[in-house]
Amino acid sequence: MASSRYLRRAAPPFVPLTLVAGAKAGAKHRQLYNQIRGHVLSGRLAGGVRLPATRSLARDLGCSRNTVLSAYDLLLAEGYLAGSRGSGTYVSRLLPDPFMALAAGVEAAGPKSHGGGSATLSARGRALAKIGFRPRGPVGAFMLGPDVSQVPFDVWGRILGAAWRRPVPALPHSGDPAGYRPLREAIAEYLRATRALSCDWRQVMITSGAQQALDLVARALLDPGDAVWCEDPGYAGLRGPLIAAGARLVQIPVDDQGLSVAEGRDRAPKARLAVVAPSHQFPLGVVMSLGRRLELLNWARSAGAWILEDDYDSEYRYAGRPLAALQGLEADSGDGAGRVIYAGTFSKVMFPSLRLGYLVVPKDLIEPLTQVRAALDDHPSAVVQPVLAAFIAEGHFSAHVRRMRRHYAARQEALLEAARRWLDGKLLLSPDEAGLHLVARLTPALGRRMSDTQAAARAAGAGVAVSALSGYAVEAQCDPGLLLGYAAVQEDAIEDSVIRLAKALDG
Amino acid sequence: MASSRYLRRAAPPFVPLTLVAGAKAGAKHRQLYNQIRGHVLSGRLAGGVRLPATRSLARDLGCSRNTVLSAYDLLLAEGYLAGSRGSGTYVSRLLPDPFMALAAGVEAAGPKSHGGGSATLSARGRALAKIGFRPRGPVGAFMLGPDVSQVPFDVWGRILGAAWRRPVPALPHSGDPAGYRPLREAIAEYLRATRALSCDWRQVMITSGAQQALDLVARALLDPGDAVWCEDPGYAGLRGPLIAAGARLVQIPVDDQGLSVAEGRDRAPKARLAVVAPSHQFPLGVVMSLGRRLELLNWARSAGAWILEDDYDSEYRYAGRPLAALQGLEADSGDGAGRVIYAGTFSKVMFPSLRLGYLVVPKDLIEPLTQVRAALDDHPSAVVQPVLAAFIAEGHFSAHVRRMRRHYAARQEALLEAARRWLDGKLLLSPDEAGLHLVARLTPALGRRMSDTQAAARAAGAGVAVSALSGYAVEAQCDPGLLLGYAAVQEDAIEDSVIRLAKALDG
Repeated sequence: MASSRYLRRAAPPFVPLTLVAGAKAGAKHRQLYNQIRGHVLSGRLAGGVRLPATRSLARDLGCSRNTVLSAYDLLLAEGYLAGSRGSGTYVSRLLPDPFMALAAGVEAAGPKSHGGGSATLSARGRALAKIGFRPRGPVGAFMLGPDVSQVPFDVWGRILGAAWRRPVPALPHSGDPAGYRPLREAIAEYLRATRALSCDWRQVMITSGAQQALDLVARALLDPGDAVWCEDPGYAGLRGPLIAAGARLVQIPVDDQGLSVAEGRDRAPKARLAVVAPSHQFPLGVVMSLGRRLELLNWARSAGAWILEDDYDSEYRYAGRPLAALQGLEADSGDGAGRVIYAGTFSKVMFPSLRLGYLVVPKDLIEPLTQVRAALDDHPSAVVQPVLAAFIAEGHFSAHVRRMRRHYAARQEALLEAARRWLDGKLLLSPDEAGLHLVARLTPALGRRMSDTQAAARAAGAGVAVSALSGYAVEAQCDPGLLLGYAAVQEDAIEDSVIRLAKALDG
Repeated sequence: MASSRYLRRAAPPFVPLTLVAGAKAGAKHRQLYNQIRGHVLSGRLAGGVRLPATRSLARDLGCSRNTVLSAYDLLLAEGYLAGSRGSGTYVSRLLPDPFMALAAGVEAAGPKSHGGGSATLSARGRALAKIGFRPRGPVGAFMLGPDVSQVPFDVWGRILGAAWRRPVPALPHSGDPAGYRPLREAIAEYLRATRALSCDWRQVMITSGAQQALDLVARALLDPGDAVWCEDPGYAGLRGPLIAAGARLVQIPVDDQGLSVAEGRDRAPKARLAVVAPSHQFPLGVVMSLGRRLELLNWARSAGAWILEDDYDSEYRYAGRPLAALQGLEADSGDGAGRVIYAGTFSKVMFPSLRLGYLVVPKDLIEPLTQVRAALDDHPSAVVQPVLAAFIAEGHFSAHVRRMRRHYAARQEALLEAARRWLDGKLLLSPDEAGLHLVARLTPALGRRMSDTQAAARAAGAGVAVSALSGYAVEAQCDPGLLLGYAAVQEDAIEDSVIRLAKALDG
């Protein structure tokens, strides 16, 4: 039953108040509260206007006096109404009038007064938004990334649960901005053994991945306007932090020995930072030669610049010895004033949504970078760190890497074999000693019929996810090619996907 | 048995090579590898110099030929040596000469050529490092922060383990940059019910806490040089992201109604952002009045500015109704073009090292902020999000909040009681309807004897951790006071700590 009454008081303005019975409408006192509040905010009930006595209003609305009392009490507590039951209740005079005018619909002047759309972002915000985040595509051939189906989650989940059912007493409390010591120790040991890095645990800082690592390094070591060497073609994900830091990105071409230091010296000799992936360039797969590594270190020393070594998939090497990291080479070959900052990640070995990585920083940067980290993002979450530390210490991590390395090597071989059989005349695939993807070059014949972007679109139409190599280039002119990730595809599904790809590329 | 031989070849330079037997020295081929490598890098073995035949060197060193073969193979693979066993092995000519000069000790010119110390940070880096991260002090009275000992970790750990032993198939894959949908839905529902926020799940973005939230907002919405209103005194943790974004921090005083909008209009009328904690100002505890809230919204609308509402401990309200968030007030009272960005955290309710928080953003900012987030830090870790979603959905979260609210209310009462009994004449404590700490004002008598900083130092000397109110002020002149966190202190330990504090403050 609806009862609708207008306030019968003579003092204007009259305001409509309606109470509706029934569970759906909610408690009556709350309905009354909401309506009076709305009238106050809209200006219909102006400051100083006196409200009816609770008994009168209750009679008018056909509800209990308690309903009105409850509504008035709430409004008094929050400041919409003032006064007291004894001396009368009125709309608070402390509410600003100009607000009422606005609320009644008067538009405010000013260029940025309307929300809406990306026009509201700052110039920096627009540049960042433009980088073009693409939602993850469907899972399947030939998406980039690891095979997460083989991660021993039974073990992982068991350790995770055990670590938190009865956590070590210090664990829930705020931690070290550089991260949980046992994990830092486990990482330092692992890197010394497998990558010939020169480091102790204090040089290890835990991050959420390469982007956060670069974000931290860029803001701590660069000022707006400082130049940075970026591999071209390269990994677009690293551009955001550099742009956000106000850096001047200088694209440096990559040849068969890696980033061209000669070009870098030519285009930006006074750059403050070079971001490179010397173990396995992305996307081309080039391994930076020893000579080029020494040239790069040479330049960094003479320029007083830093090098961020992005080592994103170094666990997966199928032939040959793993090359020592650039960081380790530096330590062995010079005066020891470290210029190389090493960034690694667990995303490719564990799973992408883990979001855990690490930096290995030169000793003189430990303290400053820790301070900057703390100023920007406190400390890394403690939930996963002890679990990963145990996972590594108990040998599950190494076992998983070894197991996946065998799978991935076999999948690469299967892809090469299927390519030889089905993609002849269209795509040329070469083996890669490392990584989780191959670069397939368009043959001249195919290249005359379509660009690599068009080839990728055709493949997508056939349900095969490949990325165009040209999409990774900013200024560089690459021979057209496609990236085929093979790690996440079951071996026996590879040939079928290659056949579908071949058909999609037919004339 | 050590065998030490010089290369007997006539061609200079002669280089020392020593092989040492015994497990501690490591495999001989590795010793030889390391030494030859070192000589190449130091320049003692120059490019082009021919190395002895393996048989000769083995004879000279008194080791097996295989030892030398293994060492040479490694050096060849890595590029230190070139040639082949048939045609002779020599030091690679591709290694850059200037590097050799450096490695031999020639100093490089240039102002930034030496690593070391915070002189290597950029100007921005130095400003950030100066913010002054302080390592967490000892746990105990009267540190700020929640009581983590009561978190139901048995339940938390159980859900965590269960979620990851057999994860939902999509979970290990890269996720939405805005976060895991079920958690976003749970948060939206919780906020609508408890804080009168106006939002649906799409407006919720998962963060690692208030700093990352502000970091994202500042970089997306501000350009370097833009002014930002900051409460003074205020929470220092929020300065880092603003400084890093190049913002101009404008300190705005706080009175008994909250941040002074009049002062803000006076000092920086065209500011682009105001960072406020209207529900419970930190550190003063002031609740922003309704009139002041509407003034602030009024200014933001007319200036086209944003408001970041930092709602860091709103679950803990002991008296009175929880005030509707500023964000909700805005939605109910105007044209709907949201200027308020709401930031919340689970740190105070769950535990500080969880590092999980959220933003509620105006609808027109969802897409742009998601893009910017993806450009800077991909997506939030998936490990904890589903667990927290379940924890909330199963009612454990609300139950924990209710339980802790009772404990904290009792602890505040115990602190007030003990203060009345023991701190008379020294500190004046007033009740606070909300939060996890009280502000204790120095009496004039005590204030004549010491500053609040000195009082805090004395307390620390007696093993009582309090912070000086003046430490939170940048320009504002606060009456001297101390912050006493009571949440993390057991009720029966409060009086003893107060007695120790009183003694420490004796003349």
